[in-house]
Amino acid sequence: MSHSAMHPAVEPLAFLLGRWRGEGKGEYPTVEPFAYGEEIEFSHTGRPFLFYLQKTWNPVDGYPLHSESGYLRPVAEGQLELVLSQPSGITEILAGTISGTRIEMASTTVGVSPTAKQVSAVKRVIAVTANTLSYQLDMAAVGQDMSIHLQAELTKAVGS
Amino acid sequence: MSHSAMHPAVEPLAFLLGRWRGEGKGEYPTVEPFAYGEEIEFSHTGRPFLFYLQKTWNPVDGYPLHSESGYLRPVAEGQLELVLSQPSGITEILAGTISGTRIEMASTTVGVSPTAKQVSAVKRVIAVTANTLSYQLDMAAVGQDMSIHLQAELTKAVGS
Repeated sequence: MSHSAMHPAVEPLAFLLGRWRGEGKGEYPTVEPFAYGEEIEFSHTGRPFLFYLQKTWNPVDGYPLHSESGYLRPVAEGQLELVLSQPSGITEILAGTISGTRIEMASTTVGVSPTAKQVSAVKRVIAVTANTLSYQLDMAAVGQDMSIHLQAELTKAVGS
Repeated sequence: MSHSAMHPAVEPLAFLLGRWRGEGKGEYPTVEPFAYGEEIEFSHTGRPFLFYLQKTWNPVDGYPLHSESGYLRPVAEGQLELVLSQPSGITEILAGTISGTRIEMASTTVGVSPTAKQVSAVKRVIAVTANTLSYQLDMAAVGQDMSIHLQAELTKAVGS
């Protein structure tokens, strides 16, 4: 999807572009800890945002687990927004900062469909060091205070 | 993305699967009428939802215009939800009905990022007849009442 020249607005996010693959672990006060395989791709089409596509799978049998997709929007010097949706019936809008190759965001709006679990707030931190992308996701959901939920380390796919 | 057996829950939506391509026209009380090329893809991974990926382009120069991505969730007999996000900073959650090959949905929640335009409600109708997918999108936004915004007719891509 990256056959057009990069829009100048997304240059501060160029460190994210490509395909990242690795493993993560999940926990939450209401669930048993779990592990997952994961692939993330950030791409652009020449417009002033990145497309974000994510999927995870069961590390034992490869069966698809979570997925999400959305858009990273630089909105001002050092500032960005992320909008995304999830097949669990959740939408998130986050706003935050880009500092070098580290992004910190907190939700401004979380939407839940009529049949989805209740999620009230989310924080996401994404950082790239050398060829490793790591992230942490904290959330306040199903009556729990903001708590760590997901942590993963992904490696850039060769040629992406 | 459709290498797994279809989940029984998505069988009533199987008529959407594949890649659809065509043209649409846009209008709104606040903008000049416009035309666009469009491609939509619905796919599944064996889980109980469809992935929805859409992009439009300027029909004259092919330059990318709008895009959106999200998930269609059958939630009960004849009922479904759609969650999606847009690079314009908007998220939508809609709920509605499947009747044969016609889907009618209305928003239950619209999210707008801190820098996005105000959108307060959306209605989407999608219908498939033979090899044609047509849709209409109405919205209430930027102070206007619910009004028609988009209409398109797409044809199923061969082999998809």
